[in-house]
Amino acid sequence: MAQNVYDDPDFFAGYSQLRRQTQGLDGAPEWPVLRDLLPRLAGKRVVDLGCGFGWAARWMREQGAASVLGLDLSRNMIARAKTSTTDSAIAYQVADLDTLDLPTAAFDLAFSSLAFHYVADFARLVGVIHQALAPSGHLVFSIEHPVFMAATRPHWIADEDGRKTWPVNRYSIEGERRSEWFVKDVLKHHRTLGTTLNTLIDSGFQIRRVVEFAPTTEQIAQMPELIEELERPMMLLVSAQR
Amino acid sequence: MAQNVYDDPDFFAGYSQLRRQTQGLDGAPEWPVLRDLLPRLAGKRVVDLGCGFGWAARWMREQGAASVLGLDLSRNMIARAKTSTTDSAIAYQVADLDTLDLPTAAFDLAFSSLAFHYVADFARLVGVIHQALAPSGHLVFSIEHPVFMAATRPHWIADEDGRKTWPVNRYSIEGERRSEWFVKDVLKHHRTLGTTLNTLIDSGFQIRRVVEFAPTTEQIAQMPELIEELERPMMLLVSAQR
Repeated sequence: MAQNVYDDPDFFAGYSQLRRQTQGLDGAPEWPVLRDLLPRLAGKRVVDLGCGFGWAARWMREQGAASVLGLDLSRNMIARAKTSTTDSAIAYQVADLDTLDLPTAAFDLAFSSLAFHYVADFARLVGVIHQALAPSGHLVFSIEHPVFMAATRPHWIADEDGRKTWPVNRYSIEGERRSEWFVKDVLKHHRTLGTTLNTLIDSGFQIRRVVEFAPTTEQIAQMPELIEELERPMMLLVSAQR
Repeated sequence: MAQNVYDDPDFFAGYSQLRRQTQGLDGAPEWPVLRDLLPRLAGKRVVDLGCGFGWAARWMREQGAASVLGLDLSRNMIARAKTSTTDSAIAYQVADLDTLDLPTAAFDLAFSSLAFHYVADFARLVGVIHQALAPSGHLVFSIEHPVFMAATRPHWIADEDGRKTWPVNRYSIEGERRSEWFVKDVLKHHRTLGTTLNTLIDSGFQIRRVVEFAPTTEQIAQMPELIEELERPMMLLVSAQR
């Protein structure tokens, strides 16, 4: 059973105010890159693993997806997602990615935004996704980058020239990482980038694209604080195909 | 034309004393992992890009490779490699990976140890390698990890608890990096891990394995200074197949 920090009232109150929640997909700077990793959506049966308020699920239906099943651990999120649509081809369900089961060959695309780093047993989950995809089905996901997650004290420091610098330690020591994000002791699971990719390969996926998100010049002009994301990789985006 | 620091007398004097040069393959802690990424060598035609003193070339012949062509920018290294064998199935030649051409479908395995991060145009080189491999041919290589190379001042620092910590900045700003290694201004070319993998994929390779080298417990017991390599990824090892 995964930690469910999203239904902690303090966490939920803070999290709900993030730009990516109040503004939806356009509030997530990595969204244009993640979107470009997606296959053509027309007619696709989609499962969204960690769907949150359902922004991506609704967008995928607008792009012609045949159906979208949105799954999330958070009852708060699923409740709000359900109130946000009357589209009968979108279903939202509470589900724990640590114990998830999915029907065989039932989906053409598995999508996940910033959820898999909460999963303890990634190999199990990838196996479940692989068998749930039809042949040639796609898996497209983002996670916190392992360089962002690895350190004991993951916060900005300065080098001897005062340059904004991200600390890396314990990179090869995989396992639990606890950090403060709206509340104390948010539990994440650190895996090296190699482990993430090899787990996909071992399950039978082909790696199609690996993107370490960096903001564009235009994004930095519109939101100057994004410039720090040139210094370190914060998010990892992966496209794989069965 | 690549910078040829290896034929600088001061560099060569220092470099020649590295354990991986005096002891050969067994002096390189990542060798067991790199070796395990190799396909079965019996009967294979191999090109070794950046062969140095020829340790790997000779080892691959011992494993049954049909032939090995060892290429290196350094005249010093090629000269010493040539004196180290009388095997007529091993050839050593001076060559610059930045301007390299290779015959079509002439090799079953392209191998490279810690050389590609000196190459300015990686996409060009990968294209040359791809056309030089027979169908289903393998490319196995190691490079300095981009997390190791990215920062303006790449040296150990301490976090507020005194924990050994590796600084990362300028990660998404690809291009030249100059650092001191036996001599000043050794020129390397930083690419993100995503760029390295996507360049392979774009050339038609399938990614088979991605390993961020970390020493084993046994290696640390034998050589305690290796423990710091658990803190940061220093080397990236990749296996790809045409």
